[in-house]
Amino acid sequence: MFYAVIMAGGSGTRLWPLSRKSTPKQALKLIGDRTMFQHAVDRLAPLFTPDRIFVVTNAAMAEVLRPQTADIPAENFILEPVGRDSAPAAGLAAVRLLKRDPNAIMVILTADHYITDTAQFRAALAAAGQVADTGAIVTLGIKPTYPATGFGYIQLGESQVIVDGFRVYRSGGFKEKPDLGTAVRFLEEGRYAWNSGMFVWRAARLMAEFEAQMPDSYAALTRIGDALGTPDADRVLAEAWSATRKVSIDYGIMEHAADVSVIPVDIGWSDIGSWGALLDVLPGGEQGNVVDGQFLAVDTQGCYVHGGDRLVATIGLKDIIIVDTPDALLVCPRARSEEVKELVNRLVAQGMSEYL
Amino acid sequence: MFYAVIMAGGSGTRLWPLSRKSTPKQALKLIGDRTMFQHAVDRLAPLFTPDRIFVVTNAAMAEVLRPQTADIPAENFILEPVGRDSAPAAGLAAVRLLKRDPNAIMVILTADHYITDTAQFRAALAAAGQVADTGAIVTLGIKPTYPATGFGYIQLGESQVIVDGFRVYRSGGFKEKPDLGTAVRFLEEGRYAWNSGMFVWRAARLMAEFEAQMPDSYAALTRIGDALGTPDADRVLAEAWSATRKVSIDYGIMEHAADVSVIPVDIGWSDIGSWGALLDVLPGGEQGNVVDGQFLAVDTQGCYVHGGDRLVATIGLKDIIIVDTPDALLVCPRARSEEVKELVNRLVAQGMSEYL
Repeated sequence: MFYAVIMAGGSGTRLWPLSRKSTPKQALKLIGDRTMFQHAVDRLAPLFTPDRIFVVTNAAMAEVLRPQTADIPAENFILEPVGRDSAPAAGLAAVRLLKRDPNAIMVILTADHYITDTAQFRAALAAAGQVADTGAIVTLGIKPTYPATGFGYIQLGESQVIVDGFRVYRSGGFKEKPDLGTAVRFLEEGRYAWNSGMFVWRAARLMAEFEAQMPDSYAALTRIGDALGTPDADRVLAEAWSATRKVSIDYGIMEHAADVSVIPVDIGWSDIGSWGALLDVLPGGEQGNVVDGQFLAVDTQGCYVHGGDRLVATIGLKDIIIVDTPDALLVCPRARSEEVKELVNRLVAQGMSEYL
Repeated sequence: MFYAVIMAGGSGTRLWPLSRKSTPKQALKLIGDRTMFQHAVDRLAPLFTPDRIFVVTNAAMAEVLRPQTADIPAENFILEPVGRDSAPAAGLAAVRLLKRDPNAIMVILTADHYITDTAQFRAALAAAGQVADTGAIVTLGIKPTYPATGFGYIQLGESQVIVDGFRVYRSGGFKEKPDLGTAVRFLEEGRYAWNSGMFVWRAARLMAEFEAQMPDSYAALTRIGDALGTPDADRVLAEAWSATRKVSIDYGIMEHAADVSVIPVDIGWSDIGSWGALLDVLPGGEQGNVVDGQFLAVDTQGCYVHGGDRLVATIGLKDIIIVDTPDALLVCPRARSEEVKELVNRLVAQGMSEYL
């Protein structure tokens, strides 16, 4: 059977001051009246029934997310004792799924990205599931629309097959975030896709990669899997978890895996990695302004206003982002929202952790 | 004797969202740690002892202002039952002063303007007091520094005399707020001064003008004055006040008064009529930013941040005004702060009176 595993343990401050350590992006209602996590769950239906949707996160975040998805069984929330990056998280899901279904095929998904063409997304997942069923590791690559320097890339190797209309390529290798010149070349060559962080594989295949590439992690994960369902489960998890190698799927698994396939997709994907990126997927209203909250404007265009309980009033602004939270306010041009990380760095440097 | 009368009953929203009906400009700490009213009192010393400083305001505002000036006797706060513009307010002060001192010379001052050269200001007042002692009406005119369209002007007539180094001119007449072309011409001709709203006269001379120009107001003010110190004082004030003509000093008194003198002064005067005007008198700090509150900036210059309890964080802004209050936030370019009145008009039109 085919299972979805949503990685929802991350924290981040790229949408500061709204996203904080305690309320990361997946917990925020950024688009419409659903949280990013709810969007991530919503778009899986009807391909995955709720009992085949799993969520890897931490205990605190599970408290936040569980009430948002009444249909997903509570036991499908897989709790990491502490975050150890995405490879151990995927391994934890794999041993859990293998306990239930030795033939489990699993897709690793993110909780804080956005996809506009959800039908195409599900069709691509179904196709990727068929390829993974043969034993391959499959990754969904996003067809690039601009020379992004903020994403990793996957090179497209030889074309292998067409499944349900999706052309499947052999991976030509993963590339780290490029500089602009390299990104332009990637776009021009047309043989690269963005690494979306969405991977599909048999759970058993993932474990085989752990065994081959990270034997210590494999041993730890196997111990954890063997203890599942026994009274020792929690104790073993707590003990063995710290023996896993803290590494991402990209570096820990994909870089040296054989038989990796790529399916380039065009699904309206965004990582919502900045306020500007969020704005790109939100429909503008009057004067191209995107407004959440009470807003009074004189000659104001292309602005994003995320208000709280207060009235936000503007005069003569263009393409400015205003994010109003109870304890912090951000004002910056739309084109410079990537620099929020610089603000966050300064908060860290100045010990103003109450704002993080 | 020479008395100062500070008109402090006004309300205004030109510095919205900080200035509100309940907290007008005179009650705000806009410059340093003193309110505008406190600045208005502070700059009178040592020319006026506190017992010779009077304040005309309403009962509610007196509650706010009295604690700010411990030295001014409580009875020197003259309370208008309701605001009826500046001419009746001046008349009310005049009858009060005449009860105490038939030879009273009074200067009418504002509570919400700012003056940087307070020594020169006091020297000019002292000179004006000498001229007023002869029976003339004297007005302090501000030497224009740019072709302002937001102020009325006074034309300088023939030069009359020099008093303590101040040249005194006969008034050539009051001019309403000009259009830009006219303002440029005024500036070029060099024979005009801004009408600052500061007037000096014998209290008896003012009453004579009321008698000649507004007999009904004169009768009402005389009744009020006669009742002062009697048990009927409050009742008579309440009754007679509504019989005064609601009009400004400029229109009601000055326009048709004879023997008006003007002393042009250069005292660093500002009406603080907009956030931009306030910024012009505030010294800029790092990167030319003027900051009140907690502020974190990346590449931000020439901005004004009036924060509340919250952190205000900015990226890539230039010459932007950010005013943060508990229930409303303003963001606008420095050059367009005059348009705050447009915002306020919309609040009125949309019935959002809770923000006024």
